[in-house]
Amino acid sequence: MKQNRRSFLKTAAFGTVGAGALFQQAWANTPAAGFQSFGINRMGTGGKLKLTYEPYELKLQHVFTVATYSRTTTPDVQVQLEYDGIVGYGESSMPPYLGESTESVMNFLAKVDLSRFNDPFQMEDILAYVDSVMPGNTAAKASIDIALHDLVGKLLGAPWYKIWGLDKEKAPNTTFTIGIDTADVVREKTLEAVGKFKILKVKLGRDNDKEMIETIRSVTDLPIAVDANQGWTDRQYALDMIHWLKEKGIVMIEQPMPKTQPDDNAWVTQHSPLPVFADEAMQRLSDVQRMYGAYTGINIKLMKCTGMREGWKMLNLARALGMQVMVGCMTETSCAISAAAQLSPAVDFADLDGNLLISNDRFSGVKVIGGKLTLEDKPGLGLTLL
Amino acid sequence: MKQNRRSFLKTAAFGTVGAGALFQQAWANTPAAGFQSFGINRMGTGGKLKLTYEPYELKLQHVFTVATYSRTTTPDVQVQLEYDGIVGYGESSMPPYLGESTESVMNFLAKVDLSRFNDPFQMEDILAYVDSVMPGNTAAKASIDIALHDLVGKLLGAPWYKIWGLDKEKAPNTTFTIGIDTADVVREKTLEAVGKFKILKVKLGRDNDKEMIETIRSVTDLPIAVDANQGWTDRQYALDMIHWLKEKGIVMIEQPMPKTQPDDNAWVTQHSPLPVFADEAMQRLSDVQRMYGAYTGINIKLMKCTGMREGWKMLNLARALGMQVMVGCMTETSCAISAAAQLSPAVDFADLDGNLLISNDRFSGVKVIGGKLTLEDKPGLGLTLL
Repeated sequence: MKQNRRSFLKTAAFGTVGAGALFQQAWANTPAAGFQSFGINRMGTGGKLKLTYEPYELKLQHVFTVATYSRTTTPDVQVQLEYDGIVGYGESSMPPYLGESTESVMNFLAKVDLSRFNDPFQMEDILAYVDSVMPGNTAAKASIDIALHDLVGKLLGAPWYKIWGLDKEKAPNTTFTIGIDTADVVREKTLEAVGKFKILKVKLGRDNDKEMIETIRSVTDLPIAVDANQGWTDRQYALDMIHWLKEKGIVMIEQPMPKTQPDDNAWVTQHSPLPVFADEAMQRLSDVQRMYGAYTGINIKLMKCTGMREGWKMLNLARALGMQVMVGCMTETSCAISAAAQLSPAVDFADLDGNLLISNDRFSGVKVIGGKLTLEDKPGLGLTLL
Repeated sequence: MKQNRRSFLKTAAFGTVGAGALFQQAWANTPAAGFQSFGINRMGTGGKLKLTYEPYELKLQHVFTVATYSRTTTPDVQVQLEYDGIVGYGESSMPPYLGESTESVMNFLAKVDLSRFNDPFQMEDILAYVDSVMPGNTAAKASIDIALHDLVGKLLGAPWYKIWGLDKEKAPNTTFTIGIDTADVVREKTLEAVGKFKILKVKLGRDNDKEMIETIRSVTDLPIAVDANQGWTDRQYALDMIHWLKEKGIVMIEQPMPKTQPDDNAWVTQHSPLPVFADEAMQRLSDVQRMYGAYTGINIKLMKCTGMREGWKMLNLARALGMQVMVGCMTETSCAISAAAQLSPAVDFADLDGNLLISNDRFSGVKVIGGKLTLEDKPGLGLTLL
């Protein structure tokens, strides 16, 4: 297994006819035999899909605080989808406010019967079936979607960003979230982050919003993304805040007002000097069209949209509608983060720091190097089990 | 080259560690070395893209007649895109009424400089560049898109319908066009077609519309698709015709009224008992949103929409908008037909008989078996050069 596979293939398979143009010539005239030589190893026939899963509690390095609550762990279920001796890895992360739990995910996965499929490449049908098992359960569905993508990418021998035709060099810097805390702690965390990240993220929507920003600005001029988490309820107040934030070097706003106030959010977007992204207001592909005109862009989160296939469709739909796109995450291992990162070369903003916030990651995958999401040149999601 | 590649790979590469679970175990623990074994041969680095092309006049088996003219040949340009010894095949077909010609395509292709790209997997950027070279020229652009898909599919070792996650068993029956002619000839052609096809297509929009349908109905009850080619100019007349056609077993209508009458077309769609598809009214991804509400579905033609990548985006956009989709063609060799056929498992109607109308096809690829489009289990477009 230590042999360099590429050179091995050239020697073993092409030796008898020569490489390049000569081989091409041979291929052109012997179609049936010819292209097996370049073929993938497994064309997806004859095997069985085997799904296994187990709970895996994510341990947060620091207490995680948003506008409405705090916590130190996130429930998570790790999934394996095996076919013909190859394993694809997937994951459900269930932050409590989204309504799924370890129990609900285990319950959902127990209901999924993939034995009716013997070709993992039939992703459209497999995932339509998974979606039909029960309504909701988007994180549970995402775990299968992610594992299936990892598996099919491995069968194809290519990472998904390549299968989707993207250039990994175009992956953006990821934002890194500075949690709400005392001024001293915020300054300290910001100074730590400044060396590693090129754009920060702050969750606002409390009464100390300006103080948070001023504290961060006392130590860095890095661009900042703001997630208001529906925290502003008066549209004029929201717009005034956005104008103030723009002056402070903030570059985008996520979900300024409650999703229950769609007209107010739309009004804010129309008047905002910064791009405004829908987050809580939307979940899936079927919501994207409704966001058109009401928000500048959408936030795609795999745990909310059932996974990579629907996420890729959402991205392309948003682009077709002339909208911006960001990709976000929950606290997740590098499995789901690397899955989301496959989309990142095609987005405007990436908020993929969820794996950096836990102390018990099971995988290595996409890395943050000089602030930039740096995808692996490995098949599927590019994961290595730690 | 006669050796069965799949069994060869298993023997040569997996022999030392055993197959299945054992190998997976080995892979999980030796990530960097491990996955080269399943990897594709060419990950798209280090080579150069080389584009070559030559005119190729398509000879029609029979005179081709639509509402506005007749012809016996179609100008066409055949394209090869070579990378690292592998050749992808593409094609421009230029029926005169679309405004492109052999000269314009050759002129466009001469302006395309792919030397700036050394990774064919970067399809998004490569095709965005090609699109930027000059406006229009959609068939010329499609030839590069098709060749690039064939090339990348060969690099991945998989057909595009698989890369897109589709099940080839879901490919529909293709329609076969019965040309406008004398009643005797129409009866004869219909009888010939009935043995081979499960759905017919008729181009109407002349003053003998009902006569054509009655003549066909005198010999078969097969379902019929109707392309009115903008031929009806009064909306009430169009709707009356559609009601009459429904009684005669017609299953869909393409472009009932001129594209210059969008409101009339929308009115017809709203009242029509049959699905109404936009054809002349649209070309590209940017047109699809405008079709929403005005037509039941869209007709995707690679020569009009710049190729497979944009076609796949159009299909997904239309689905996201709840619209139906058909895929159509020009007179083309099996190259462009097989390219369009990769989309076909995801469409409602396929009108891919263009290769069956010429006497000098250069390729074999997708076949019509028992009326049904039958895709090849071969990489890329599944082509064999004849």
